[in-house]
Amino acid sequence: MSAGTRAFPSPRLHEFCAGVFAKMGVPEDDARLAADVLSCADRRGVDSHGVARLRTYYDLLSAGRINPRPQMRTVRESPSTATVDGDNGLGLVVGPKANRIAMEKAGGAGTGWVAVGNTNHFGIAGYYVLQAVARDMIGWAMTNSTKGVAPLWGAERMLGTNPIAIGFPAHEEPPIVLDMATCTVAYGKIEMAMREGKPIPLGWAIDREGRPTTDPRAMLEGGALLPLGSERERGGHKGYGLALAVDVLSAVLSGANWGPFAPPFALRQPDPGHRVGKGIGHFFGAMRVDAFRDLAEFKSQVDHFVRTLRGTRPAPGTSGPLIPGDPEREAERERAERGIPLLQPVIEDLREISRRTGVPLE
Amino acid sequence: MSAGTRAFPSPRLHEFCAGVFAKMGVPEDDARLAADVLSCADRRGVDSHGVARLRTYYDLLSAGRINPRPQMRTVRESPSTATVDGDNGLGLVVGPKANRIAMEKAGGAGTGWVAVGNTNHFGIAGYYVLQAVARDMIGWAMTNSTKGVAPLWGAERMLGTNPIAIGFPAHEEPPIVLDMATCTVAYGKIEMAMREGKPIPLGWAIDREGRPTTDPRAMLEGGALLPLGSERERGGHKGYGLALAVDVLSAVLSGANWGPFAPPFALRQPDPGHRVGKGIGHFFGAMRVDAFRDLAEFKSQVDHFVRTLRGTRPAPGTSGPLIPGDPEREAERERAERGIPLLQPVIEDLREISRRTGVPLE
Repeated sequence: MSAGTRAFPSPRLHEFCAGVFAKMGVPEDDARLAADVLSCADRRGVDSHGVARLRTYYDLLSAGRINPRPQMRTVRESPSTATVDGDNGLGLVVGPKANRIAMEKAGGAGTGWVAVGNTNHFGIAGYYVLQAVARDMIGWAMTNSTKGVAPLWGAERMLGTNPIAIGFPAHEEPPIVLDMATCTVAYGKIEMAMREGKPIPLGWAIDREGRPTTDPRAMLEGGALLPLGSERERGGHKGYGLALAVDVLSAVLSGANWGPFAPPFALRQPDPGHRVGKGIGHFFGAMRVDAFRDLAEFKSQVDHFVRTLRGTRPAPGTSGPLIPGDPEREAERERAERGIPLLQPVIEDLREISRRTGVPLE
Repeated sequence: MSAGTRAFPSPRLHEFCAGVFAKMGVPEDDARLAADVLSCADRRGVDSHGVARLRTYYDLLSAGRINPRPQMRTVRESPSTATVDGDNGLGLVVGPKANRIAMEKAGGAGTGWVAVGNTNHFGIAGYYVLQAVARDMIGWAMTNSTKGVAPLWGAERMLGTNPIAIGFPAHEEPPIVLDMATCTVAYGKIEMAMREGKPIPLGWAIDREGRPTTDPRAMLEGGALLPLGSERERGGHKGYGLALAVDVLSAVLSGANWGPFAPPFALRQPDPGHRVGKGIGHFFGAMRVDAFRDLAEFKSQVDHFVRTLRGTRPAPGTSGPLIPGDPEREAERERAERGIPLLQPVIEDLREISRRTGVPLE
């Protein structure tokens, strides 16, 4: 564990989060569901999307900006699709319920696809596809988010980090779980570089004039992240195109705010003011493997594929290719033993919430 | 038009291709369909996937390696899915027919998803999604292909360039059409750099030892392309993960050969020998927009999104962001007037085919 952190058992943090959500007016089952999603991020080592964000959800619920008791509505549907209005609920509650609709549709029609609007930040995208994988389905999850990324050849933030997650079940091997933002690097890495006074690599970001920069402050103060691929020569138009596709599927299809109009996640972020829809949008997919191929055959081929990739001759200085999901599984193993390491400022935030809500942290 | 090229009217090339396929035993309707796909690439400026590849298809048909009269079979289906065996037909024929099944399924179930195995190279992925877009659907197309790309931290070719195409219909604006390989750059760009004696940028490729290289020859002679994102720091694990997802959806789901076992496209390429399935695999999707949202509303929002992105403040030295599909539409406009510019070696190939088949080129 690094200096300045203290480990908490995962079940303790889960109980705390569920207790806080309940205190904020979220029905108990929903509160536990929301805690499940945050806990999944913490266990898998995605610290930026776990309990460290409870403060933001707490602030938004306190300010009345998120509806603790949403009445979700299916506003349109077909045998394999649904469009859901999340009634401005927690994305951590609306997301899992919409994802269930996708899985139920897949049960009947072979696949299920759900666009969700009028919702809020849904946590870690990987959580949703793991739900599908556990049911022998291929899972898909996407969401749009507050602007932070410039389109290739743009000098300003127009798109979110717009993640894509896809999960494939295997038999003896662990599942393949891809969970990636469509920009080069997470916003959090720029913040970390600034705190540590270190430059960032070229290709991560531009400054407020749209020029490539190695200064984290220049990105944070009016600059933007670059899409996956960075510049034109290395395929920045591809990362930009993927981010745009995620935005259309999540937000345009569902009637949410898209692109630069996606509302901010945190209270301290500036609001674009203008609205072109309601809330942000998510997009979920579930494909029953056995709608395409015998399940056992599929899984044994995925095992074979995974082992073949692990057998790749390693590049110098590396131990060879990983399988998408490996780093998260490694974190999960370690944290199951040692608990979830939290940074001091995060612990302070949680203590403050504990004082205000009366929900005990330890 | 550049030096060393001569322009041919697009309808002339289309007729020539259709005539050649028919001479090789392909039924007339199928021959025209195959010519449609090649012609689409030529008109949209994707020269590597157009008539320049007729020679390869001709060679494979001549050698009896592709079945000119495949009996395609749906081997499994559900309301929104089908798995198709392409009977080792031309991908240019099997692909469009499987894509039609996806669009028909979408008519009934809202969406349609078709995995195709036992098939061959299907041409330009953008062709397929444009078919869906013309029917007010969101189109998806993917395919796996002969190995040429190293997984991140690998020192050898294990995956194909595995393209993803997605298309969204608009109203007054042209559709958004993303059509991208999941590696940094096309193989053809490495060949071009070698012919011109120029170095390639770092991040495109590795040599046979797995070391980053700027020497195009080092990539061509036993090296590999890098996935989108290039190295770990810039997100190479993301491009690798996308390439893997495309391979599983296209090949594992359909019972085709995946990863390093995908058979070669051209006769001159080495054959991996070992088989784990049949042929290569494609994956098509079609989503009826009105299964999710009122069509007119959706299209007007896409127009608004496109215009908003075009209004982005430009980065220095650029004229601002493009919309995915813009460069292809620009080529289409130009080539509609001036014809398709073909390089001298391509013209020689076509003349040779013309002599052998008796189909007139001019």
